[in-house]
Parts: sequence; structure tokens; C-alpha cells
Amino acid sequence: MPKYRITVAYDGTRYSGWQVQPNGTAIQQLLQEAAATLLRQPTPITGSGRTDAGVHAKGQVAHFEAEESPSLRSFNALLPPDIRVSAIEPAPDDFHARFSAKKKIYHYNLCTAPVHDPFLRLYSLHLPQRWGVERVREAIPHLVGERDFTSLANLRGPGLDPEDRVRNLERVTLVVSEGRVVVEMEGSGFLYKMARNLVGLLLDVGMGKIEPDGVPAILEARDRRASSASAPPHGLFLMRVLY
Amino acid sequence: MPKYRITVAYDGTRYSGWQVQPNGTAIQQLLQEAAATLLRQPTPITGSGRTDAGVHAKGQVAHFEAEESPSLRSFNALLPPDIRVSAIEPAPDDFHARFSAKKKIYHYNLCTAPVHDPFLRLYSLHLPQRWGVERVREAIPHLVGERDFTSLANLRGPGLDPEDRVRNLERVTLVVSEGRVVVEMEGSGFLYKMARNLVGLLLDVGMGKIEPDGVPAILEARDRRASSASAPPHGLFLMRVLY
Repeated sequence: MPKYRITVAYDGTRYSGWQVQPNGTAIQQLLQEAAATLLRQPTPITGSGRTDAGVHAKGQVAHFEAEESPSLRSFNALLPPDIRVSAIEPAPDDFHARFSAKKKIYHYNLCTAPVHDPFLRLYSLHLPQRWGVERVREAIPHLVGERDFTSLANLRGPGLDPEDRVRNLERVTLVVSEGRVVVEMEGSGFLYKMARNLVGLLLDVGMGKIEPDGVPAILEARDRRASSASAPPHGLFLMRVLY
Repeated sequence: MPKYRITVAYDGTRYSGWQVQPNGTAIQQLLQEAAATLLRQPTPITGSGRTDAGVHAKGQVAHFEAEESPSLRSFNALLPPDIRVSAIEPAPDDFHARFSAKKKIYHYNLCTAPVHDPFLRLYSLHLPQRWGVERVREAIPHLVGERDFTSLANLRGPGLDPEDRVRNLERVTLVVSEGRVVVEMEGSGFLYKMARNLVGLLLDVGMGKIEPDGVPAILEARDRRASSASAPPHGLFLMRVLY
């Protein structure tokens, strides 16, 4: 059957995350239900990767197989307004949303103003305390590159092969404007919860709890317990998946 | 008692509007409850004007009297996260949030992309159909200036003096970018529902239902029924009140 690739934007606030699971409503589930209705048969939809409960996406990518593609309009008509399919395109037979992905870009939004902007309350972490951008910029080079990110991953079970914990984090950029900081992260892949754990570490560095040159020892520990708590999900956006 | 001026931002989605009324929760009411708790006495809070149910504000202004001002932090701690006091300042004795206001600026947000951005679904009107910006730009000069805006006002009761229906609409600007249009409106005052009724008229002009040079006859009719339906509230923001 022909393959189709979809780009999906969603406000993760109300959802249990991308992936179908026993409790709560998953974004993947609502897309599969809409596709099944339109295509009149069960239609599995495979995403580029999961996003956690509360995490948002502007450019999640997924694929499915169908004799004919539903129209953008009919697909969106069957979805709630906080989930929108922004593009449907034919994809080559060997395309796989997860395995063909070359790169992902995540943004984490911080509001550093003394009073949180009420329109960003669901889309950014409020950080009114002193947060040293220069300290964070010093720490970043210790994180960028091909590294073992075990200390920044919530590994599930003991079975994950040590060489599977290496990822190439190509870029971390802080974009600073009046009352706002965006932490942009770009890499060939992210381990489970790695983006939020990376931001959690940078939060502690900026607040002075961890020295910038203390970061290498945290990575070398290869132990999740050596690093900081995860940053909350609502500041995180999966912006783009590159193929 | 000393007077204080506050600037308030709110996401109007959940509220029955600014002004206390029998049904629903009003923003004014929550501010008054917070102030009463902090100041240990009933504290009326007077806004620059009402905003309707569902309308948002980035810079609503209000005043109250108190022996001493509560801190910004304590005020916000007693408010829900979709209402934020962004400034508290001492005000002169003769300051009145409504009667001292010289000018108001409203923005109305349109999303003209084929698929609505899910993050703007509560803050902009989706207008995927053909909408002629040039037609709207032709209509604007017929609306700007000191005019009788009866046709764009929801007048309550027959008692409003004809000269009270004149307002000076100083500026209407369309700011157009990729998939977005912001209708900026600036004037010495707005009649009840005038901003939304003005946008409703511009929507019809852009969609070809009304000719740009048909606008003067609509105003001359001095009859609300001569003009278009009101634009929905969720696209409208009270941006600033100038004193």
C-alpha cells in the first residue's frame, strides 16, 4: 500500500503524550481513530518518537499506509482543535518516521520576567529567580558533541546496551530576548527524557547550584542520579524532524 | 486614602468578562477578592472599561484605594495563573482608570493559514477563506476619524444621547505576515462592542460581501442592523490604555 507522511502540531496540555498507553488520551490514538474513520479500516500511525505527557509539538512527523490519502480538511475535521495535521504528503516505500529521521530540533521556553505572561503559562517555564545566562553558555560546550548521555536519560530497564546511550548533540543555543529565553537543541537523536533532563541541568547551572565546569563529571558518572531533576514538560516543543 | 493603579493581563477564555455580573466569574471580581483578602476590607476595583466574555487583555488598567499597596507577588499569589497583575503604581488622587483614559489600543488577531495554528486557537480567529487585504485597506479611511459609530455599537436601551455615539477612531492598521493578520485599532474611546463590530464589518468587506465604498452608507444609517455581525471575542486583545 502507498505510504503517507504527515506533519502534526499539538498542544500537549490535555494529553498523556504521543504514544498510546493504558491511562489518559494519547495524540497517536486520536490520529489513528480519525484515520480509521476516514479510511474505514484500522490504520496504525507511527511517529518519529514519543513525546511525554504535557510536551507540545509544532512539527511532529508520522507515517501510515493507505490506498488513498484522506484530505487535510477531512482529517482535521475529525480531530480536536488542539491537534492539527498541517501537511499530508506521499512518502517513498522505505520511509519510516522513526528510523529514517536524521535529526530533531527541540525548543524549551523560559519566561524570565518577574511576572509570568498569562498567555505563555501553558507554554513556558516561569523562572523569575536570578539565572546566569553566561554561566549556562559556559556549560554548553561540555554537552555538545557525540557523547554518552546516560546521566541525562531515563533508561527503562537495565537492558539498554551501553553503545545505545551515545548520541550526537549537534547544537544547543540560548536565544535571549526581553523576559524570555529559548533553549534550542538539535541532535541526531535524543534518549528518553534527554531534552528535559538537559534543560533541568542547565537550570541548575544558571541558578548557581552546579558549576559550568562540573558538567563533565556529571556525564562521566553515566548515572541519571548524578544530574539534576527533569525540567517540567510544558516548556518543551518538538519543533522539527529532519529526514 | 492613597490611590493605586494596576496593569492587568488576562486570558479571557474562562471568564464572563471584566465586569462583575450575576452569572459566571468576572476578572474584576477575582481581583476584588484578592485585594479584600490582602487589605482586610472590601476593596472596589475600577477598570478602564469592561471587556466582554472571552476577550483578552495584555494591558487593562484599573485603580483602587488603600492605605498601603499589596506587593505584586502577594497579589498574584491570590490570583489564578490566567490573570496576572503586571504592575502596581501609586496614582494621583484625581486619577480614574475610566475617566482619565485618553486612548485605547485593541488588536484583533486573524489566522489566515489553511490550517489553524493549535497554539493560537484560543487567541485568533481562523479565516482560511479568501480575504482581500487590499479591499479592507480601501475601506479603512471611511472608518477612521471623528464619526458617529451608532452602526457599530450595541447600544443598551434607547436612552443614549446621539452626541454620545461619536468617537474619534484615530488609527486602524493591518499588520500582515505569513498566515497572520493583526487589525490594530487605536482611538479616544470605543462604544460598547465597537471593536468587535468594526472587525466584523472588515471581515465582510474582505470576503466580498460588502464593497469598500459601501461603508459610508453603513455608518450614515446610524443603525446597528445596517452593519455586519460582530467578530467572535477570542481574537480581541485590549493591548494598552493611555493616560
